Amino acid sequence: MTEGVVYVGQKPVMNYVLATLTQFNEGAERVVLKARGKAISRAVDVAEIVRNRFLPNVEVESIKIDTEELESEQGRKVNVSTIEIVLAKKSE
Amino acid sequence: MTEGVVYVGQKPVMNYVLATLTQFNEGAERVVLKARGKAISRAVDVAEIVRNRFLPNVEVESIKIDTEELESEQGRKVNVSTIEIVLAKKSE
Repeated sequence: MTEGVVYVGQKPVMNYVLATLTQFNEGAERVVLKARGKAISRAVDVAEIVRNRFLPNVEVESIKIDTEELESEQGRKVNVSTIEIVLAKKSE
Repeated sequence: MTEGVVYVGQKPVMNYVLATLTQFNEGAERVVLKARGKAISRAVDVAEIVRNRFLPNVEVESIKIDTEELESEQGRKVNVSTIEIVLAKKSE
């Protein structure tokens, strides 16, 4: 069972859609979209576009949210929210 | 079983945290955070702050993502991603 990961950041949403499609085409059964902070909305867009527009046989298997503690440049601790969206091929 | 809803938009995150805490304090067993587009990241922040900082006995029961079709002012159809995060008091 191959599993891929796509880190969703600040680039245009279609970059990440393409990365996800590529991983499924190369045989991944499951692709995990990971994002934090403001990129979280974009990760949801990626999941929805992949599913609705390109791969109807892929479904959202699970969604997990969490908090990570980062250190800012001034050495201050900052909490940032994270999301993990697991996309998986439907078993037929 | 009382259920509340908080629509998360563009206001500061603590506004929505407070709205969520108020609903739990008034007896809700479950509060659903709903957001779309760029406010999705903020909804995740609200869930994480409520859980980690204020109500440790509240957990994320489920997370659902979807797509809504809106009509722009020019009459064009635009797809926007949505999220629903269900927060629930842990059964003890």
